[in-house]
Amino acid sequence: MKVAIIGVTGYSGLELIRLLSQHPEVIIQSLHSQSMVHHKISDIYPHLQNCCELMIKEIEPATIMEETDLVFLATPSGVSATLAQPFIEADFPLIDLSGDFRLKTEGSYEKWYGKEAAPIDSILKAEYGLGEERQNSQANFIANPGCYATGALLSLAPLVKAKMIQPDSIIIDGKSGLSGAGKVPSTSSHAVSVMGNMTVYKMNQHQHTPEILQQLQQWNANIEAIQFTTSLIPVTRGILLTIYAKVNEELTEEALVELYTSYYREKAFVRVQPVGVYPDLKQVQGSNYCDIGLAYNSETRLITLVCTLDNLVKGAAGQAVQNLNIMCGFPEELGLINSPVFP
Amino acid sequence: MKVAIIGVTGYSGLELIRLLSQHPEVIIQSLHSQSMVHHKISDIYPHLQNCCELMIKEIEPATIMEETDLVFLATPSGVSATLAQPFIEADFPLIDLSGDFRLKTEGSYEKWYGKEAAPIDSILKAEYGLGEERQNSQANFIANPGCYATGALLSLAPLVKAKMIQPDSIIIDGKSGLSGAGKVPSTSSHAVSVMGNMTVYKMNQHQHTPEILQQLQQWNANIEAIQFTTSLIPVTRGILLTIYAKVNEELTEEALVELYTSYYREKAFVRVQPVGVYPDLKQVQGSNYCDIGLAYNSETRLITLVCTLDNLVKGAAGQAVQNLNIMCGFPEELGLINSPVFP
Amino acid sequence: MKVAIIGVTGYSGLELIRLLSQHPEVIIQSLHSQSMVHHKISDIYPHLQNCCELMIKEIEPATIMEETDLVFLATPSGVSATLAQPFIEADFPLIDLSGDFRLKTEGSYEKWYGKEAAPIDSILKAEYGLGEERQNSQANFIANPGCYATGALLSLAPLVKAKMIQPDSIIIDGKSGLSGAGKVPSTSSHAVSVMGNMTVYKMNQHQHTPEILQQLQQWNANIEAIQFTTSLIPVTRGILLTIYAKVNEELTEEALVELYTSYYREKAFVRVQPVGVYPDLKQVQGSNYCDIGLAYNSETRLITLVCTLDNLVKGAAGQAVQNLNIMCGFPEELGLINSPVFP
Amino acid sequence: MKVAIIGVTGYSGLELIRLLSQHPEVIIQSLHSQSMVHHKISDIYPHLQNCCELMIKEIEPATIMEETDLVFLATPSGVSATLAQPFIEADFPLIDLSGDFRLKTEGSYEKWYGKEAAPIDSILKAEYGLGEERQNSQANFIANPGCYATGALLSLAPLVKAKMIQPDSIIIDGKSGLSGAGKVPSTSSHAVSVMGNMTVYKMNQHQHTPEILQQLQQWNANIEAIQFTTSLIPVTRGILLTIYAKVNEELTEEALVELYTSYYREKAFVRVQPVGVYPDLKQVQGSNYCDIGLAYNSETRLITLVCTLDNLVKGAAGQAVQNLNIMCGFPEELGLINSPVFP
Repeated sequence: MKVAIIGVTGYSGLELIRLLSQHPEVIIQSLHSQSMVHHKISDIYPHLQNCCELMIKEIEPATIMEETDLVFLATPSGVSATLAQPFIEADFPLIDLSGDFRLKTEGSYEKWYGKEAAPIDSILKAEYGLGEERQNSQANFIANPGCYATGALLSLAPLVKAKMIQPDSIIIDGKSGLSGAGKVPSTSSHAVSVMGNMTVYKMNQHQHTPEILQQLQQWNANIEAIQFTTSLIPVTRGILLTIYAKVNEELTEEALVELYTSYYREKAFVRVQPVGVYPDLKQVQGSNYCDIGLAYNSETRLITLVCTLDNLVKGAAGQAVQNLNIMCGFPEELGLINSPVFP
Repeated sequence: MKVAIIGVTGYSGLELIRLLSQHPEVIIQSLHSQSMVHHKISDIYPHLQNCCELMIKEIEPATIMEETDLVFLATPSGVSATLAQPFIEADFPLIDLSGDFRLKTEGSYEKWYGKEAAPIDSILKAEYGLGEERQNSQANFIANPGCYATGALLSLAPLVKAKMIQPDSIIIDGKSGLSGAGKVPSTSSHAVSVMGNMTVYKMNQHQHTPEILQQLQQWNANIEAIQFTTSLIPVTRGILLTIYAKVNEELTEEALVELYTSYYREKAFVRVQPVGVYPDLKQVQGSNYCDIGLAYNSETRLITLVCTLDNLVKGAAGQAVQNLNIMCGFPEELGLINSPVFP
Repeated sequence: MKVAIIGVTGYSGLELIRLLSQHPEVIIQSLHSQSMVHHKISDIYPHLQNCCELMIKEIEPATIMEETDLVFLATPSGVSATLAQPFIEADFPLIDLSGDFRLKTEGSYEKWYGKEAAPIDSILKAEYGLGEERQNSQANFIANPGCYATGALLSLAPLVKAKMIQPDSIIIDGKSGLSGAGKVPSTSSHAVSVMGNMTVYKMNQHQHTPEILQQLQQWNANIEAIQFTTSLIPVTRGILLTIYAKVNEELTEEALVELYTSYYREKAFVRVQPVGVYPDLKQVQGSNYCDIGLAYNSETRLITLVCTLDNLVKGAAGQAVQNLNIMCGFPEELGLINSPVFP
Repeated sequence: MKVAIIGVTGYSGLELIRLLSQHPEVIIQSLHSQSMVHHKISDIYPHLQNCCELMIKEIEPATIMEETDLVFLATPSGVSATLAQPFIEADFPLIDLSGDFRLKTEGSYEKWYGKEAAPIDSILKAEYGLGEERQNSQANFIANPGCYATGALLSLAPLVKAKMIQPDSIIIDGKSGLSGAGKVPSTSSHAVSVMGNMTVYKMNQHQHTPEILQQLQQWNANIEAIQFTTSLIPVTRGILLTIYAKVNEELTEEALVELYTSYYREKAFVRVQPVGVYPDLKQVQGSNYCDIGLAYNSETRLITLVCTLDNLVKGAAGQAVQNLNIMCGFPEELGLINSPVFP
């Protein structure tokens, strides 16, 4: 099948190129961008020399729909909302990597993103694309989840669905590498600000907060709020989440690991770690894996979840390809079972 | 006054040399180590050429007590316990940077450090050296606090003393640079394991847990347990703690900042940040500052504290010099009010 | 075809697993190591969970030759020499990644490696495996080149063969990431020694010096010596070489780029950069590319070559797979044309 | 004495604040900037809280000359040229950290900086401020050297003055941390471009080339050109230069080290390393030291010099303070003999 990628000069768009180049059933038919039109992608990004040398084209929806079978929007929030409309109206297969079609409650997008939302009927047409929870979906318009949200939801799903934790006790302490902050140069992304440093940002204001909460509430309506903190660490790729939740009843770490192992037995991309083992960033970088480690402290009655994933793969482009696989009836892991790039 | 430093080849010992070289009232009389005796310190550590070229001597307590006025023990936990004895018995001014004299409850050291404790009567003679809480002390034997403990306690003191938070709600999520893990080469300290990575370690087992709890309980006996998580980030110096606690009653961020500003008004080394501002590592590296930022989330009723300090300065050698100043009746900040090394 | 990998716990062995897992014509039949026998590779290296879960076996040459079609030795210099013997004697297809079979002059190995050499007749049987220079080879025993040597030789080949530079003027200033130094923990590989630092090592003593010189002399017997400096920079993967050479006759940068472009026109893995463009590490990491940029300074009459490659791929495991392709008559780039992992 | 700093929001200006705060004979009277006027410096740079809380003032030369005894210009090249004029005209003590008054040949500044030069008579009034070569100077207007130039010149001075090397053989391979590139955010200073990477920049075009050459030619008029390459490594502070030069006559490393040791015997800030020892960045960071290691290769007849310094201290603000000391008749090292911040 042939696909088009719109928004190809950002990190997620580039990662789509990398992953789709290796996908046995997909041909990248065309690349599109609002900037850099008529440049070869490999002239702008020399790592793509000999790998992908397509010319960047203008964004002409009619032509794209004529020449391809599916379109990825790897454009920023606020941009996707507009660009997606012709594809939505034509019911054309669409996977959007931005936050523009994730929040289903009116007013929520405006509050957390500080911009005008896409039309609510468009938003409601999009299925939230958390791959592991999308069995038997027929959707052809996917709102691909945020990177933090993917990790938080995969980590919390078994506990929340089983109603094992106190609904007001969830604290998510997130740490992200710099590629999660996008490619626009700024004081906070300047290497001198980042190397040897760690910074907290968007305190109580990160836009993935309502995205996580919305999904958790579908699993357990008693959850009214979550605490979500985000910080930047001096790495390029990767997210590590430390998540705390108070249990309703005492349990053992063995039972906890068993619960998760069972829950994710059929899921290729979620790797539950053994008792006493916690994942790091290096074991997921470059791959579509989401690794989860589990601890229980009987003194505080708190479960600690440690979750790692590559924000550009499982947190963006990789999960988008996973969603393509689901949409097209391919095996979910097709083209995605590659070893992380270690070390 | 003349001082000796025992355990001079580790990071804390080296930092003592750096700081004491700039102290207007102190002369470093002698350096001592179990290894590297008869080598010039500047031959082993070339950064000290022209700065400190003392020969490393054997550890002979009688001579040290004869030739100096105060001794620092910058030796590892388990080693200080033994080395300190002659100085304790002689009631000689002593500041120990290890964990050996901090835990006052019998059995606690053995449980958390996995080693035999120092004699309990020696332990009880040591005063816990959290500088900001040591007004009018006459102690001449100081157990210098751990790096994480310093940040956690300075961050929690105002809240806990004021009994504003639920006693079972404290969660401390700690991130440390690699110098906190010591200089011994290992797989986990190998640059290839560290760069581009973040790892969780000692889950529910970090030895600063009882140290923090012991002090919190002196301030509020209702606190029975704390959750404390530790992780390594790819930086050399610095600790960032994110601390969560549930309030008893609603409050505002303004009131919170005002509480802390008042509490630390007279304290040169604790810098409370304005509303909406959170400290990073770069603003404290190389200095004795402990910076604290404060947030309140009315949805979750959680306070979030963000605390940064340099683990080798305020978390070790700097606080030890601060304790020397207190012990000797010097101004607490003498020799320590230097700008952080930014960027 | 089925392959065995001996020496699977080092970085090169792990990279062979990563690359061969994606090779369409190869099955990894077995993994072997002197340490960690009977452990699952994915228990030791959790990044391999779900990717490669083979048990590590003892090194039994007879069994390996019975069950597989080719063996990789990813063992350290000094170890390969011995392990290779039964395979050499049986004329079994063998690719050795160590330095043990590269130096053809008696006494050279002992001088530069400080160890006893392999038997000289074994050494002489091995073909030096610089992929781009191995047209029509029938060899089935390959001494895979060193990482620095690969970059230096690919960079210098066109100039040296064309006799355009003064034979006594070659200076190679090499910078390497830490994975090039191996996984053994030491003071120099400790993260605190590496992060924020750069160090020069093995001044005038790096063991790739004779390897580079030997090959250059085959191309131009007038070259009697080279200057080769090596240093460590705080990155995990990648080598950047800056190479200087004085020209015999004036030229232009355009002519220089044209020479290289022609020379490497048919070579998939050498990407010559346009005039005024110089490669960085990020554009090759995770890939088998070797990128070369060229400059000429008419004031000094010096050519400056800038060369980057991933030391674990083109500098080790990737070139080994390239050599497998050549040995087996596969297209040279089979299984290796993947996009670098950028950013 | 009282000083003013103009251009206080860049890295060099901040470093002047850090160093002058510790200088026993200097009071920082006022800070000036074209941007951020009327803000407290510690509100913009929170690391300065409690250290320096001066308000940033407008640049009014008359007031500055009235209220202070000396002015530092830590403004960018192209800006200093204009700002300096009133001070030059008034013969007011002035130390300029930019490149605007270093190049004495007409046309040179325009060629290498691509901007209009300061008036030539102003340029000729400035003394080039390489501290170690400024014995008995009476100058009160100093053009503070560039960071690379400082390292290159201190490294080459003994060899070039002694005419021991071939005049057309000097190659300087420079590597710099990111603070050397300034604080303006750009794609090349973005953390994602920098971490895990190394890049070559300004190939054959770095503006320190004529500055180095001009001084070398004063020492040996036969030197007609130098090769100078610059690259960025992922560190914040520090420069490492590897310098090659061909000898006229054979020598030994011992003789070489002896030559340098003698030459710099009286110089506090140049630390010549013993035979076989090469400096790294960590041993100079935060300090005014310039460390030099020396090697000789009898095969290639090349000397290799390895030089490290902190670009913000010896390469900028520290050397500026050293020049203040010389100008004021203080001991050259006053306020500057502090231990590097290791590790």
